[in-house]
Amino acid sequence: MMKIGILGYGNLGKGVEKAVQSSPDMELTAVFTRRDPAGVQIAAPGAKVLRADELGHMQGDIDVLILCGGSATDLPEMTPKYAAGYNVVDSFDTHARIPEHFAAVDAAAKGAGKVAVISCGWDPGLFSLSRLYAHSVLPGGSDYTFWGRGVSQGHSDAIRRIDGVLDARQYTVPVPDAVERVRRGENPTLTTREKHTRECYVVAAEDADKARIEKEIKEMPNYFADYDTTVTFITAQEMKEKHQGLPHGGSVIYSGSTGDKKHVIEYSLKLDSNPEFTGSVLTACARAAYRMNSEGMSGAKTMFDIAPAWLSPLSGEEIRAHML
Amino acid sequence: MMKIGILGYGNLGKGVEKAVQSSPDMELTAVFTRRDPAGVQIAAPGAKVLRADELGHMQGDIDVLILCGGSATDLPEMTPKYAAGYNVVDSFDTHARIPEHFAAVDAAAKGAGKVAVISCGWDPGLFSLSRLYAHSVLPGGSDYTFWGRGVSQGHSDAIRRIDGVLDARQYTVPVPDAVERVRRGENPTLTTREKHTRECYVVAAEDADKARIEKEIKEMPNYFADYDTTVTFITAQEMKEKHQGLPHGGSVIYSGSTGDKKHVIEYSLKLDSNPEFTGSVLTACARAAYRMNSEGMSGAKTMFDIAPAWLSPLSGEEIRAHML
Repeated sequence: MMKIGILGYGNLGKGVEKAVQSSPDMELTAVFTRRDPAGVQIAAPGAKVLRADELGHMQGDIDVLILCGGSATDLPEMTPKYAAGYNVVDSFDTHARIPEHFAAVDAAAKGAGKVAVISCGWDPGLFSLSRLYAHSVLPGGSDYTFWGRGVSQGHSDAIRRIDGVLDARQYTVPVPDAVERVRRGENPTLTTREKHTRECYVVAAEDADKARIEKEIKEMPNYFADYDTTVTFITAQEMKEKHQGLPHGGSVIYSGSTGDKKHVIEYSLKLDSNPEFTGSVLTACARAAYRMNSEGMSGAKTMFDIAPAWLSPLSGEEIRAHML
Repeated sequence: MMKIGILGYGNLGKGVEKAVQSSPDMELTAVFTRRDPAGVQIAAPGAKVLRADELGHMQGDIDVLILCGGSATDLPEMTPKYAAGYNVVDSFDTHARIPEHFAAVDAAAKGAGKVAVISCGWDPGLFSLSRLYAHSVLPGGSDYTFWGRGVSQGHSDAIRRIDGVLDARQYTVPVPDAVERVRRGENPTLTTREKHTRECYVVAAEDADKARIEKEIKEMPNYFADYDTTVTFITAQEMKEKHQGLPHGGSVIYSGSTGDKKHVIEYSLKLDSNPEFTGSVLTACARAAYRMNSEGMSGAKTMFDIAPAWLSPLSGEEIRAHML
């Protein structure tokens, strides 16, 4: 049995916990938290809740530590720190900073003889794999990534910071016509606005100026200004009834050719729960990290470096017999 | 530059040749044939056409030999034979015989310190990967594979063997309602008949009994009896105008869950040319075979054993920067 630790017990940590519990070859040793452990109730029977600083001396009790912090401030510090003592997995998704994150983690993990798999999940993660397989098989084509329909937590948070907003949920929605054009292999040039629309559901304070809130949302740079955005004001009750889930998904569509012959490759996900699915991917990557380290590997890795067989709890014979 | 050899110059061999020509890191040394080389005209400038038995002494001239024979009789003999002297790649697709093929190839390749990647292509191949990733991330779900709309060469050949048939083309077509039910995550139990239909286009001899031909097709065991099959008689001219391509494709749809949350993963291909796309996959696998062997690996492998990064001509830094 692989002994797993989880650091951080938000939505993602809970998703990892669920995935570890349904993995026949893993057991959850402990959830580590920066909060007071007495106030953290976990779902897994038999696992402990411990302070994060207990990780200073638990290298012998944990085979892989799954880091469930945020990419903005947690992981750039956490991943190199813990890779110096544990095999680790993270979901670092700040694209522009991946090279420096990779370098910092690589140095720490190599120094400790551990494996650190960074940027696991579905994008980056399974979507990245889909892009890499397609580009490798058909060089010279174009990949298009569409996200949604799904909740963007970053955009929802941005709306919540507006004065007079009590709660908000933002859905990213691919433009159907754009998806169809890509699927037909037309290879279109698409602007940001042509690829996705943004739907915002907002609970406003009773006395708030809704016109001002709508304007502030629609004009917010980076988040909304470049998109066709719709704002719908709803009651707190409606928010509770219709918008509590965190569904997401999307597709990577690759359009390539061999001479005059066109080929279209599409990989798509429709997820009822983004954090639970992402947690499942991290858990499969933890299995691979453990095996890679057992075979003598060390350093920073991504899903690009993981032979797919290492992700499965089944043997080579079994996967060849049932999935090949 | 990786030096590539191709054994067999049918549709698949021609597809591999095209893919090697568009690979910046490869050069085609020679096409090997069991026919008289004088009668074989290849497309790649600079490459030789040689008798297959020249492979007895060309181990120093070829880094990877891509085997483009058929699964029924060629590959079971060819792959172990040539794996004893070369890194090789094949597209062996007789599912039930994969374990024995793997074992025979593994022994030969290990003995020679070479890497032999078997069963490359899209199914088995990319579709197998899609099944493995899905099962690894969400254990306990169900995968469904739909083929088509596309030409099945085996079924076309079976029709051609009927008395009075001059030419035939058979399209395998997924049943749209079945695909939709799987996509919605309904997890249906589907019979063979409920998953695919078969469309046959037949050129009959002038004096042939068309009713008898249609009956023979529709009642042919294994090939057509278990399917809703339509037979359309066309002229040789129509066959030439409308059915000369070898398009294919299909999708793997996986339906899994985390507790009460459903997740659907879909991987699909729409290919203008089945042999050219399959040849492209074999070529990417040849790159991986060469690299794995350069790192000291040997023995039989499948795409399950290939870290995705090994398939790409780009460096780790490049793929992390552009595809992660």
